[in-house]
Amino acid sequence: MKAVIISIGDELVLGQTVDTNAAWLSEELAGLGIVISEHVTVGDDINAIIKQLQRCGSETDLIIATGGLGPTRDDLTRLALAQFLGKPLQLHEPSFEQIKQFFQQRDRTMPQVNRIQAMFPVGCEVLENKLGTAPGIQGPVERAMAFFLPGVPREMKEMYRLQVKGKLQRWAAAKGVQKVIITRTLHTIGIGESDIAEKLGKMMDRNRHPIVNCTAADGKVSLRINAHGAHDVEALCLLEPVEREIKRRLGNLVYGKDDDTLAGVVGQLLRQHKKTLAAAESCTGGMLSKELTDMPGSSEYFKCGWIVYGNQAKIDFLNVDAELIEKYGAVSEEAARQLAGNARRLANTDLGLAITGIAGPDGGSEDKPVGLVYIGLVDREQVKVGRYILPGERAMVRRRAVNTALDVLRHRLIDIDQLSV
Amino acid sequence: MKAVIISIGDELVLGQTVDTNAAWLSEELAGLGIVISEHVTVGDDINAIIKQLQRCGSETDLIIATGGLGPTRDDLTRLALAQFLGKPLQLHEPSFEQIKQFFQQRDRTMPQVNRIQAMFPVGCEVLENKLGTAPGIQGPVERAMAFFLPGVPREMKEMYRLQVKGKLQRWAAAKGVQKVIITRTLHTIGIGESDIAEKLGKMMDRNRHPIVNCTAADGKVSLRINAHGAHDVEALCLLEPVEREIKRRLGNLVYGKDDDTLAGVVGQLLRQHKKTLAAAESCTGGMLSKELTDMPGSSEYFKCGWIVYGNQAKIDFLNVDAELIEKYGAVSEEAARQLAGNARRLANTDLGLAITGIAGPDGGSEDKPVGLVYIGLVDREQVKVGRYILPGERAMVRRRAVNTALDVLRHRLIDIDQLSV
Repeated sequence: MKAVIISIGDELVLGQTVDTNAAWLSEELAGLGIVISEHVTVGDDINAIIKQLQRCGSETDLIIATGGLGPTRDDLTRLALAQFLGKPLQLHEPSFEQIKQFFQQRDRTMPQVNRIQAMFPVGCEVLENKLGTAPGIQGPVERAMAFFLPGVPREMKEMYRLQVKGKLQRWAAAKGVQKVIITRTLHTIGIGESDIAEKLGKMMDRNRHPIVNCTAADGKVSLRINAHGAHDVEALCLLEPVEREIKRRLGNLVYGKDDDTLAGVVGQLLRQHKKTLAAAESCTGGMLSKELTDMPGSSEYFKCGWIVYGNQAKIDFLNVDAELIEKYGAVSEEAARQLAGNARRLANTDLGLAITGIAGPDGGSEDKPVGLVYIGLVDREQVKVGRYILPGERAMVRRRAVNTALDVLRHRLIDIDQLSV
Repeated sequence: MKAVIISIGDELVLGQTVDTNAAWLSEELAGLGIVISEHVTVGDDINAIIKQLQRCGSETDLIIATGGLGPTRDDLTRLALAQFLGKPLQLHEPSFEQIKQFFQQRDRTMPQVNRIQAMFPVGCEVLENKLGTAPGIQGPVERAMAFFLPGVPREMKEMYRLQVKGKLQRWAAAKGVQKVIITRTLHTIGIGESDIAEKLGKMMDRNRHPIVNCTAADGKVSLRINAHGAHDVEALCLLEPVEREIKRRLGNLVYGKDDDTLAGVVGQLLRQHKKTLAAAESCTGGMLSKELTDMPGSSEYFKCGWIVYGNQAKIDFLNVDAELIEKYGAVSEEAARQLAGNARRLANTDLGLAITGIAGPDGGSEDKPVGLVYIGLVDREQVKVGRYILPGERAMVRRRAVNTALDVLRHRLIDIDQLSV
């Protein structure tokens, strides 16, 4: 069973938006054993859309298209489909009602332009949009079955999950698709790509199966294992020994897998150990706290944070000694220790975590270059301050500082069994 | 002059890697006045690559392909091109020397597999790779000129800049392409896509020039104006009246253009008015402060922030009345007012900005649903608290709350001329 993904939008062909939908859909389809032979992207051009429908519809079994279902004049997908099928557009009352309600719930009247979003080519099926005003469309295109989904990733994903995936599963089963691909990603921090390559050796050879790929970003390296088989169980039986072996070789450098985030894993550890945390941030300006509170339920372990950006704020709100700042500077081991310790004490938490550093581009000196970051972690039993020189420009220094702080905390939570206020 | 971009790689069609090369190349080509009619992505499959070369080579004037030039068995681009052209692969000695040197410089011996990277179809031109071991290839494909570049973005971009861009410029000039495309993006907040469409009316028609497109995300809508002309000046003369007219119709709903960010614009306004800010965040957990400190030099106006996630933290660190929380709840107009006012007072800043809300997924009730957010802004002259119901799941509610708070602050800074502590 072969499939093509079509992405529609001027912003995509002009390169103003990077298309993430095609990759997301491809991973989903691959998981169902559907082979994606091609992605194709065209602009908001009705003839170009029709041409691709013709070509792809005659070459494949399945088309998933995204984009061009908005209410404005540059949204041409439904019109292209209607022309291609030689069918008129017809108002679908239930969709029209839903769109009107969407606006009502937001205390707004539906603008007239949105009516077009309730129009569908005669004979096509409507795919409800629970999150926006652009319903999707399902219909035959030459010998292929085609699904037209909105371009907004959130709406597209929700519609795929609720109304496309199940159909594809049944359809793949009926067509006797007998190959599935299973992917597992292991995330590491604290080790570089080439060191990983050395530790894994032949496991990363290209002609192996399962195959292991490696990508790096912001001080983290992710390893992706791909295994295929006639069914889930076969693919998993091939994948799992490779996963176990990588974990054995890398140990605690592996912090999570698949959708795990570093902050999510740390939050889970805090919850598991019933520990609470207060944060004090200087150069990261709230990014550490933001990541720790990304997870629902984070109020259980994250109690409060201070963004003490200037020196006076460090003195006023976290009681850092003015003399200490005078003597050692705000970016120093001593300041990091006081920030973490005082945040913990003031907030009455188990742990205090502090970041102070020079994110740049200005503020660096020979002694204290841009990228210099101190991370302090204080708990009942120990005070730990690390000094780091992080590479990159401002945004990367900040991201890496947050990742490093989270990793320091992660290792501490792995090490300790008992720790109390 | 029409162009197609072909991306080659299993990791792309399987969705394991998001293709950023196509977008980058498209923006480059658009700047030269070359129209990109299509992006197409195929896997590491020799027949699929050949099929696309045939199709695209007969439909367009220019093909830029990326990927499949590595040393391993799944790198099939050069072989596909050779088969398509009916030419054998031949060793190119200078490239072979460079590849060997690449390894020598890293104290490694060249693995035998890398020799293939110095092989090119007879009659094609070699494009030197200064950053890696995969030289590019230039050759004719049907009626199109084709450039095959490496898939690694860094190597691809460097090769494009040094060895492709100049050729395309000369070629476009020789072909009489007397067209450049200039793009301007205007960013708005506080108005939906369909209301914008109503306000702009015929300006958004598809057959107009300059053409205006519209994309929405997190409560912001961006309008992209594309104008083409024989040269920069002509394109700009067409673009600017459209830009002015959009600004006239939308007024202060437009917060910036091109690379401007909302937080950046707000920071600029704070700097311009010499105003300082303190932030108090509950449900956004540091995201507001993080965005405000993304910009270098933000310490000039951003003094400090409190992340008072729990009720006790609100009481302890920002002196919110316990009784008030008892009576109205922490998500209330009263709490937002105290948070903003007390942050301002404690930090001794001109402005205090506070966000308190229910980001979900839990914590909502009939009275106070998920998405309910209060934003308080206090300065010397006024106290303003807004109540919002923001759509979406946790991450979106948080992003929208931050955007709304920044926009409230932006409007205040536009309104005031004088304001002091």
